[in-house]
Amino acid sequence: MLPLLAVLASAEAATPPSSNGIDYPTGWQEWALIAVSHRTDNGTLRAILGNDTAVKAARAGQTNPWPDGTVLAKAVWKGAGLENWSSAVAPKAFVHAEFMIKDSVRFAETYGWGWARWLGETQAPFADGPQVCISCHTPVRGRDWVFTDPAPFPH
Amino acid sequence: MLPLLAVLASAEAATPPSSNGIDYPTGWQEWALIAVSHRTDNGTLRAILGNDTAVKAARAGQTNPWPDGTVLAKAVWKGAGLENWSSAVAPKAFVHAEFMIKDSVRFAETYGWGWARWLGETQAPFADGPQVCISCHTPVRGRDWVFTDPAPFPH
Ligand code: HEC
Ligand code: HEC
Repeated sequence: MLPLLAVLASAEAATPPSSNGIDYPTGWQEWALIAVSHRTDNGTLRAILGNDTAVKAARAGQTNPWPDGTVLAKAVWKGAGLENWSSAVAPKAFVHAEFMIKDSVRFAETYGWGWARWLGETQAPFADGPQVCISCHTPVRGRDWVFTDPAPFPH
Repeated sequence: MLPLLAVLASAEAATPPSSNGIDYPTGWQEWALIAVSHRTDNGTLRAILGNDTAVKAARAGQTNPWPDGTVLAKAVWKGAGLENWSSAVAPKAFVHAEFMIKDSVRFAETYGWGWARWLGETQAPFADGPQVCISCHTPVRGRDWVFTDPAPFPH
């Protein structure tokens, strides 16, 4: 029994607990890209990734509103110049991953989006409710609560 | 026959011609992320994406050398502050896509990598040979010719 228990324990450890009642969106690390950004005010680099529904909507320019089923993921890293090209700011330590999950029925009370964040390499769930997210995203409520313009891609 | 010909013609137009004898790597727009960067010297944002072989190697830290079959794609955009958060520099016009393709036999004369670039939204092939790429990447010849450190991802 011991090897089996070890396997079960490690599989369980691999999925972090929920944040704001939202399950951890597994597999986001391999999702396709919607945009990138560099917050020059706090020196962090960001990648905005999406599940299939989100990427299709982004490429088609159908993002106001984003369709139900959309999941947007934002990964944040500390930035620092590359060792061999110091003016190129590139990712260092992982800071957090956060998600906006579109379900206009389930999340009707939070403007159609579920809001969740997990911290650091260990992906510890962020305990604060969605109000901290929503208040900061309020300037873009007319853009379905999303700051990002999907990056243009050649076809 | 006409509708069939129209379909064939549009499928052909969709794949740009080769660059430096290298076929266009179709589907790279949906590849997973290896890293991002912001070249603050010329104001451009970059995403470094990889095919499955590249992403597996990056996540496992097996990148010196990168395995045969690796394709690294770099997408470059002009950067500008977000409309609603001006200190966040985000992608605007698409500049170019460029690729390093690892095949230690086929590309033995160019240090194991094929080098190719396509320009702009129309993805016009870049005509200059690989020497322009290689000379600029020479400072990282001890890192298998690659500047980028794969970004850390939580598991
Ligand atoms: C300090 C202000 C602020 C707070 C607080 C905040 N955000 Fe954001 N968020 C932003 C900005 C600005 C962007 C645009 C991209 C960037 O980070 O450069 C963004 C982008 C995002 C994105 C990518 C889609 C988009 O809107 O561009 C997601 C997903 C996201 N935030 C989720 C969250 C969640 C979940 C929380 C709370 C747990 C949260 N945010 C709290 C400012 C904030
Ligand atoms: C002006 C110098 C310069 C030239 C010329 C250049 N590169 Fe690069 N390249 C860089 C730097 C610096 C990076 C690191 C990422 C960045 O852009 O911030 C890079 C990154 C890359 C990457 C991502 C993997 C890595 O090494 O980090 C690819 C792929 C790439 N270059 C391909 C090419 C190709 C193909 C050419 C020629 C057609 C070329 N490069 C020419 C400087 C250059």
